[in-house]
Amino acid sequence: MFVFSFKKGWNPDGKHCYVTGGSSGLGLALAKILVAKGAHVSIVARDQAKLDAALVEMEAARVSPSQKLQAKSADLLNATASTAALEAVCELYDGEAPDAVFTCAGSSKPMFFVEMTEQDMKDGMDYGYWVQAWTVWAVTKMLVKQKKRGAKICMVSSMLGLMSFAGYASYAPAKHALRGLADTLQSEFMLYDIESQIFFPPTIYSPGYVTENKTKPDVIKKIEGTDEGLTPEQAAEGMLKGFVRGDNHISADLLTDIFRAGTRGSAPRVNFVFEAIYDFISYVSLHGSTFVL
Amino acid sequence: MFVFSFKKGWNPDGKHCYVTGGSSGLGLALAKILVAKGAHVSIVARDQAKLDAALVEMEAARVSPSQKLQAKSADLLNATASTAALEAVCELYDGEAPDAVFTCAGSSKPMFFVEMTEQDMKDGMDYGYWVQAWTVWAVTKMLVKQKKRGAKICMVSSMLGLMSFAGYASYAPAKHALRGLADTLQSEFMLYDIESQIFFPPTIYSPGYVTENKTKPDVIKKIEGTDEGLTPEQAAEGMLKGFVRGDNHISADLLTDIFRAGTRGSAPRVNFVFEAIYDFISYVSLHGSTFVL
Repeated sequence: MFVFSFKKGWNPDGKHCYVTGGSSGLGLALAKILVAKGAHVSIVARDQAKLDAALVEMEAARVSPSQKLQAKSADLLNATASTAALEAVCELYDGEAPDAVFTCAGSSKPMFFVEMTEQDMKDGMDYGYWVQAWTVWAVTKMLVKQKKRGAKICMVSSMLGLMSFAGYASYAPAKHALRGLADTLQSEFMLYDIESQIFFPPTIYSPGYVTENKTKPDVIKKIEGTDEGLTPEQAAEGMLKGFVRGDNHISADLLTDIFRAGTRGSAPRVNFVFEAIYDFISYVSLHGSTFVL
Repeated sequence: MFVFSFKKGWNPDGKHCYVTGGSSGLGLALAKILVAKGAHVSIVARDQAKLDAALVEMEAARVSPSQKLQAKSADLLNATASTAALEAVCELYDGEAPDAVFTCAGSSKPMFFVEMTEQDMKDGMDYGYWVQAWTVWAVTKMLVKQKKRGAKICMVSSMLGLMSFAGYASYAPAKHALRGLADTLQSEFMLYDIESQIFFPPTIYSPGYVTENKTKPDVIKKIEGTDEGLTPEQAAEGMLKGFVRGDNHISADLLTDIFRAGTRGSAPRVNFVFEAIYDFISYVSLHGSTFVL
């Protein structure tokens, strides 16, 4: 077969992949794909029962008896716990840092800003930003200390890390913050040969989505009608495709592509031709009605 | 004189303007301009000596004996303190919420991510995001409770809320988060006739800038060489101009204009013609070297 590629891809086979939030939704779907492609996969999440069930699904996807699959319970809301969780999954590898890290942990509780308590605001940042940032912080320190080169770290933001609307005053700031972190690290990581990537999924029909819909005001559900959403499997496939390709900003659907094109900042373009078209769509559809001359 | 305008402007004369971080830099420069335009101005900051000196400068800019000028010391790092500071400055107005709020408080400590402690990371979010978000939260609750219409709230992000590079792994996430909050509120505030605005200044040659340069690695100073920077007075003039005009995303220099155009997400365009040109510059200069087909 003739394979033509401008870029060297990344192959999960034989790599140690660390997936946080790996017991359900996007994280679990991703973990299973990685297992099916021959990776050693470690997942962490909080709920032991869900982890046990997830490990059964991962085992079912196994392609080689030598693959190391593990699931550990951990809280990732602070630096100490995130470091401990990372060290725990690296024990099987004599403490060596993972080859790839996917921070899929997080949750959202949409509600109106005026109804938010102090705790709601703090939870938004904790479960949207810190739950991923502390793992990135711990992994980076470990990689740099071990002088391990070529590792890849991928955070999971959201379409709401590129734009926002009513209902997400605690969540959108956190998802924007992840983007700020990923873009900073994209430049700092050049010093250590680590790659910083970030995924902006649209709505994912996951257990977390069912939970957030319980508190979501009706008007917000209406606004979100234009976002058709993806299954966790579709989102994971799209995420991994961009990850393998080395995209710094990864999106997996057309609507996010358009927002990504319109908000990419200093991140390199993924595709020079399509993004020019998306830019144009973003330009006309989002802003065409606002003429101030 | 013939004045032609498509938009009704906003006039500070006789309005109660609340400026956080008002004792130095951008906040103080803005406070003095507002005083010179006839506003009642309340500033808060932490250091009482700086507040006293700032009040002297504000008094010097006074245009009417009836203007109420006050300076109060407050810490704004949590919801309770920020609510208390707001209530304290509103006492002079029988508890009525301010007409305009400018959250200029904040500071930055640039350093490399691998060198950051847990506290450095937390401080970045506290002094970059929460120090403003809690005031916005407190003011919004007060405005909605009092059913006061027509108020304007302007946060202060940074060029680093639109893009980022080495050195700002604690600061850029916070400044991105402010943008996520402002964009969410822009949509929610329509329900209450409140305006959400956000300013993205470039480097400002302020006392805060002198402080941050003490820890800033040399390579970061080098990267920043292309950002010519503004004096606090220039930045305040630019901020107020966009504020009066009702821009949701405000910038005051060409370099930020270009980044703003390239990352505006769902925010309305400020100027349909110029931004198409900025888009093009942003497109070519930031991304022209990255062809992935």
